[in-house]
Amino acid sequence: MLSRAINRVISSIKPSSITRMSSATAPAAPVAAAKAPKASKKSKLQVSLKTPKGTKDWADTDMIIREAIFSTLSSLFKKHGGVTIDTPVFELREILAGKYGEDSKLIYNLEDQGGELCSLRYDLTVPFARYAAMNNIQNIKRYHIAKVYRRDQPAMTKGRMREFYQCDFDVAGNFESMVPDSECLSVLVEGLTSLGIRDFKIKLNHRKILDGIFQICGVKDEDVRKISSAVDKLDKSPWEAVKKEMTEEKGQSEETADKIGGYVKLNGSLKEIHTILSQDANIISNEKAKQGLDDIATLMKYAEAFNIDSFISFDLSLARGLDYYTGLIYEAVTSASAPPKNASELKKKAKSVEDASEFVGVGSIAAGGRYDNLINMFSEASGKKSIQIPCVGISFGVERIFSLIKQRMNSSTVIKPTATQVFVMAFGGGKDWTGYLPERMKVTKQLWDAGIEAEYVYKAKANPRKQFDAAEKAGCHIAVILGKEEYLDGKLRVKRLGQEFADDDGELVSAADIVTIVQEKLSDIHEDGLNEVTRLIRGL
Amino acid sequence: MLSRAINRVISSIKPSSITRMSSATAPAAPVAAAKAPKASKKSKLQVSLKTPKGTKDWADTDMIIREAIFSTLSSLFKKHGGVTIDTPVFELREILAGKYGEDSKLIYNLEDQGGELCSLRYDLTVPFARYAAMNNIQNIKRYHIAKVYRRDQPAMTKGRMREFYQCDFDVAGNFESMVPDSECLSVLVEGLTSLGIRDFKIKLNHRKILDGIFQICGVKDEDVRKISSAVDKLDKSPWEAVKKEMTEEKGQSEETADKIGGYVKLNGSLKEIHTILSQDANIISNEKAKQGLDDIATLMKYAEAFNIDSFISFDLSLARGLDYYTGLIYEAVTSASAPPKNASELKKKAKSVEDASEFVGVGSIAAGGRYDNLINMFSEASGKKSIQIPCVGISFGVERIFSLIKQRMNSSTVIKPTATQVFVMAFGGGKDWTGYLPERMKVTKQLWDAGIEAEYVYKAKANPRKQFDAAEKAGCHIAVILGKEEYLDGKLRVKRLGQEFADDDGELVSAADIVTIVQEKLSDIHEDGLNEVTRLIRGL
Repeated sequence: MLSRAINRVISSIKPSSITRMSSATAPAAPVAAAKAPKASKKSKLQVSLKTPKGTKDWADTDMIIREAIFSTLSSLFKKHGGVTIDTPVFELREILAGKYGEDSKLIYNLEDQGGELCSLRYDLTVPFARYAAMNNIQNIKRYHIAKVYRRDQPAMTKGRMREFYQCDFDVAGNFESMVPDSECLSVLVEGLTSLGIRDFKIKLNHRKILDGIFQICGVKDEDVRKISSAVDKLDKSPWEAVKKEMTEEKGQSEETADKIGGYVKLNGSLKEIHTILSQDANIISNEKAKQGLDDIATLMKYAEAFNIDSFISFDLSLARGLDYYTGLIYEAVTSASAPPKNASELKKKAKSVEDASEFVGVGSIAAGGRYDNLINMFSEASGKKSIQIPCVGISFGVERIFSLIKQRMNSSTVIKPTATQVFVMAFGGGKDWTGYLPERMKVTKQLWDAGIEAEYVYKAKANPRKQFDAAEKAGCHIAVILGKEEYLDGKLRVKRLGQEFADDDGELVSAADIVTIVQEKLSDIHEDGLNEVTRLIRGL
Repeated sequence: MLSRAINRVISSIKPSSITRMSSATAPAAPVAAAKAPKASKKSKLQVSLKTPKGTKDWADTDMIIREAIFSTLSSLFKKHGGVTIDTPVFELREILAGKYGEDSKLIYNLEDQGGELCSLRYDLTVPFARYAAMNNIQNIKRYHIAKVYRRDQPAMTKGRMREFYQCDFDVAGNFESMVPDSECLSVLVEGLTSLGIRDFKIKLNHRKILDGIFQICGVKDEDVRKISSAVDKLDKSPWEAVKKEMTEEKGQSEETADKIGGYVKLNGSLKEIHTILSQDANIISNEKAKQGLDDIATLMKYAEAFNIDSFISFDLSLARGLDYYTGLIYEAVTSASAPPKNASELKKKAKSVEDASEFVGVGSIAAGGRYDNLINMFSEASGKKSIQIPCVGISFGVERIFSLIKQRMNSSTVIKPTATQVFVMAFGGGKDWTGYLPERMKVTKQLWDAGIEAEYVYKAKANPRKQFDAAEKAGCHIAVILGKEEYLDGKLRVKRLGQEFADDDGELVSAADIVTIVQEKLSDIHEDGLNEVTRLIRGL
């Protein structure tokens, strides 16, 4: 690629060094093969070179994308006045107990090695509530970007992992009804759009309306949670299957199930569903449902102020599994969220269920809701004075969003894993040619000290082509070249890299000015604006 | 604080709204008490509100400092051409087995809940080697900032935790001798100085020299590791105690111990110690020691090129515990690294040893070395073709560095936990006064959409003082004020906040221009330059 540039630069350097160099240039081997061929496995394996089931390594370019997602979301959370905290990866086991309903079986425990019994955190919400209760926090807007752990069936390519990141923003404190809730919904919309996801909708429901409906339809209080979890399956299963679960497995009458069906099939804009429910005498006369409906009316005003109402679908089938929700609940879905049409067929065909990627969808890409009792549950259980600190939050599923962003990549997307801007090289030859390694180090160190990303080849003597290849591999913009004679004269050659500069010999400058000159050149280059990662993340 | 400003702003707003407001302003209560008084503990505790032993939560301002440290170090690693990777928090147990010598007992295991046996990672080096072997990586400069886990005796205020961050930079690949090693040492110096730590020295030694010395002094090969671990205690114990351990516990003769003593007491500049050892016939004729000494001679050239030689103390007592080191080893220490003078007395007095903070020092704040066989150990054990991929690295102990940086803080250090720049307020009054909540939301949303950090009070009607208090608490620079009448005229008031602007009424601007005007004002403010966190981190 750069051969023309190399030849031209070489020819502009003092002749004494050239003769030996051009022969050294001839082989033109790549600096180092990126991957060696896989050796065939021997019979006596001792260690499996793999990560545990449901976990994965993140390689360099994937990390660039992941960090760009994190930085987009943390800027968003900061924009809304969020502060960030961090909690340990594991909690005392008793802290997590009884918070996750049926899913508690998915919690990872640490081995009892003496001392306290601990478990890996299952989400960031329970540790946050523990933190708030422990520190007597009255109000906070906090965000937390960290890994959580669930012994679930993994679907790796769909972003369903056993170790995965959550990016949470929560508002705790006694505030005007539905104000923080609306802000969380706005954060959700702003977050997804800033990540280039625009074809999403927010399914939204209210636990109090749902509970009211169950009462109206004749579900006993003790059955509410299990009927709720049946309803929650409506995004994956047809009504008939859910009805069957309610009547045959969960002991409800045909009449109750049909009544529930009449409600939970409803979905539409906030206004549409609010109008329907407001005209329903049963709803209006049920205290819980009425409270929920009033909240929705308030929310409508604020959603309009934030201009997010068009994203919201009021969907009475949304129930969400977690025990701790008490009010508004919501989740964002895209077309990739649903499982493939022939999912059950694929599932039957699948020989192993080690990875469910083939027959599941990406699922919701962000979700949250209101949980008003979690903090004071901790305060009470620890013997502190109980003060209710209501909370509402939103959690972004980064792994799932990551898998959507990766799908945007095509053969022309080039993500540069390093930040290197400048490559420091030496050209010379002859019997007395040392390769200028300490000299290259000295020049590179000057650039580092000025905050400039710079590399050089870790070799005493390297031929020009290998140095240019290494520079190209690192995606450098500028070469600083120590010519054998030129360097002795106190001069360095500065050359732009890249195909379009193939004919450019660069310029010879005073070694004393190198930092200033490189800084100027780099600031010109960076005026180009958006880089490839930003474009990818924003879906441009 | 801001009362003059409030009164002046109020008096500049249309009179109709004033009468009711000033009485509402009177109580001047703070927005919300930050902490409620602790309730006395009841007898029937059910849950302990605490983090597991040796772990801690990170609160908002501590997180600001921690993130500034991370960002300083990751910029540094990027400057040196590093790419970043991430690995799971737990690994298959067999991956960690046999890598940490005596310290293997400190590994946290996950409970056997069916499936694979896993353990939490003990460092980032072994997972890195597993990653490199698994992916047949021939060369890489990688950095990794992540949590590691050790069931050690904690010393919380000294930054010795059971869960703590490591910031690692490692160079893998077959390169010119001592070149990546010197670069790691330069990274160490650049890293600590950029974090405002200048009074450190790098203790440096070479495993081959140490092994050669043990051979020369008559230590049997099978005893080398345990004698090495005795020598490593010389930074905490006097020679007499170490000698006693060698002779009485570890079966060495008096003569052997004395010979060892003659060597390991040596320390000085690279040049001094290199000169002494080069004149020692026993050293020169020992193959291993000679190899190590040649490495040191090479290192001297490069350390001079990087201008880091003055930081290095060649110290033959440095041994370092980990099994996998094969060449150069080093650690950075400051005056805070050593335990207090009366440590053993304090230790005796201590009633509980739950926390060893009182009688330990901060220890080394960064450490590393060369480990040439770890990657191919994994390749071989997994049955792959074995190719030696030599490695060298440096690991920064962020928690310890954090504790040093915290000591710089004094009563005048104010770290702002939020990024909020603008507070959107509404002033009005009268029977028909709504409080302009949806209107405030609309204006705030405009600012968010332009990337500006903005907040408003989550209350339908809030009096001016409470809004100013909240703005002050969030450390905002600018208030955008919706006056009852002014807003109806399409106008907003923009006012600088802070004591020095107490007399400034701000200016009335067209609501349509609000984003541009706020952006201009903010860019003026930000020309101030360095913020408080940057000053703290750099020790300015």
